[in-house]
Amino acid sequence: MASWGERLAGVRGVLLDISGVLYDGSEDGGVPIPGSVEAVARLKRSQLKVRFCTNDSQKSRGDLVGLLRRHGFDISESEVTAPAPAASLILKERGLRPHLLVQDGVLSEFDQIDTSNPNCVVIADAGESFSYQNMNKAFRVLMELESPVLISLGKGRYYKETSGLMLDVGAYMKALEYACGIKAEVVGKPSPEYFQSALKEMGVEAHEAQ
Amino acid sequence: MASWGERLAGVRGVLLDISGVLYDGSEDGGVPIPGSVEAVARLKRSQLKVRFCTNDSQKSRGDLVGLLRRHGFDISESEVTAPAPAASLILKERGLRPHLLVQDGVLSEFDQIDTSNPNCVVIADAGESFSYQNMNKAFRVLMELESPVLISLGKGRYYKETSGLMLDVGAYMKALEYACGIKAEVVGKPSPEYFQSALKEMGVEAHEAQ
Repeated sequence: MASWGERLAGVRGVLLDISGVLYDGSEDGGVPIPGSVEAVARLKRSQLKVRFCTNDSQKSRGDLVGLLRRHGFDISESEVTAPAPAASLILKERGLRPHLLVQDGVLSEFDQIDTSNPNCVVIADAGESFSYQNMNKAFRVLMELESPVLISLGKGRYYKETSGLMLDVGAYMKALEYACGIKAEVVGKPSPEYFQSALKEMGVEAHEAQ
Repeated sequence: MASWGERLAGVRGVLLDISGVLYDGSEDGGVPIPGSVEAVARLKRSQLKVRFCTNDSQKSRGDLVGLLRRHGFDISESEVTAPAPAASLILKERGLRPHLLVQDGVLSEFDQIDTSNPNCVVIADAGESFSYQNMNKAFRVLMELESPVLISLGKGRYYKETSGLMLDVGAYMKALEYACGIKAEVVGKPSPEYFQSALKEMGVEAHEAQ
């Protein structure tokens, strides 16, 4: 196996996932993964650029960073790439007015977005908010559009919490895709555009990142 | 266009849908479609065998027939093919013990089925019961099985009620299929086995039915 020195030859930046890499989530905030606080600190002391790239669409970046800081991580909002602010940018660029099916905790990321008379639907990992009523509302908004646009913040099948497995946004994306006969646009990993935006924010090229 | 006499040559039996053909549904029981009560009466006076084949998985056959009789239709339970009793037969034959994600109204169709220690999941058009919590429970049951079996009572995308479009069971089937990486078994239209069982109950061959 190559040494760290060899493996990192030419590498200028590191993209780190958050949930499952820095900490294991749960309803009450979760627990840091052993060694991860120090690993982040060492990376930040090195010459490498570091950025955090998450698919968490339940929390605003502010809330996520607050949680991580309480766990002892040295992280600021500007170092985090997350699907909600990325989607917010796309909505602005394309003049889209979303019907939002998201948790209250992430609504602040869409503060600057006009949500009147919606011409698209944005779904995130909405958890308990994925009620039949809320899903049916999103479905009806899509069916009333001439060209329905569904933006999904990630397409994860499920994730693990300390209480057990949890259905992720991808399952509900598939439900709406099937019901409406459409294909969603995914903002989040593994979309190449999403990784590109994180690299751009970090200022490194794909071949220079780990 | 061929006359009715020509079109019905060789036809011995007629399969009729219920919702959208005999009546338009709504939460308060719906309304019969003009002319349908008399059309059913004429068919039953004719030499043709008549059977009613529905994908309604919200109500027991008893409740459905009661509703139709209140609308003036001359229909008995034994004339109705419905997904829940068909699934109940399949469960018995295969020794499957279901975790049921269905509305209370249809539970009586599974009275005779052992639901302890489930080794499969059955989903129906569960409406408001498609909460995140109930979906996640069904998902976890499937993920704990070595060979997950998901039986879906129909695979409709949506249906129309007087209040507007309603997401149907197919959307939630797709959500669980995607999350678990499995393919559901569909009991209900358009499954050929389902039509066959209705024809068998009527005692006619496929080429003799309209």
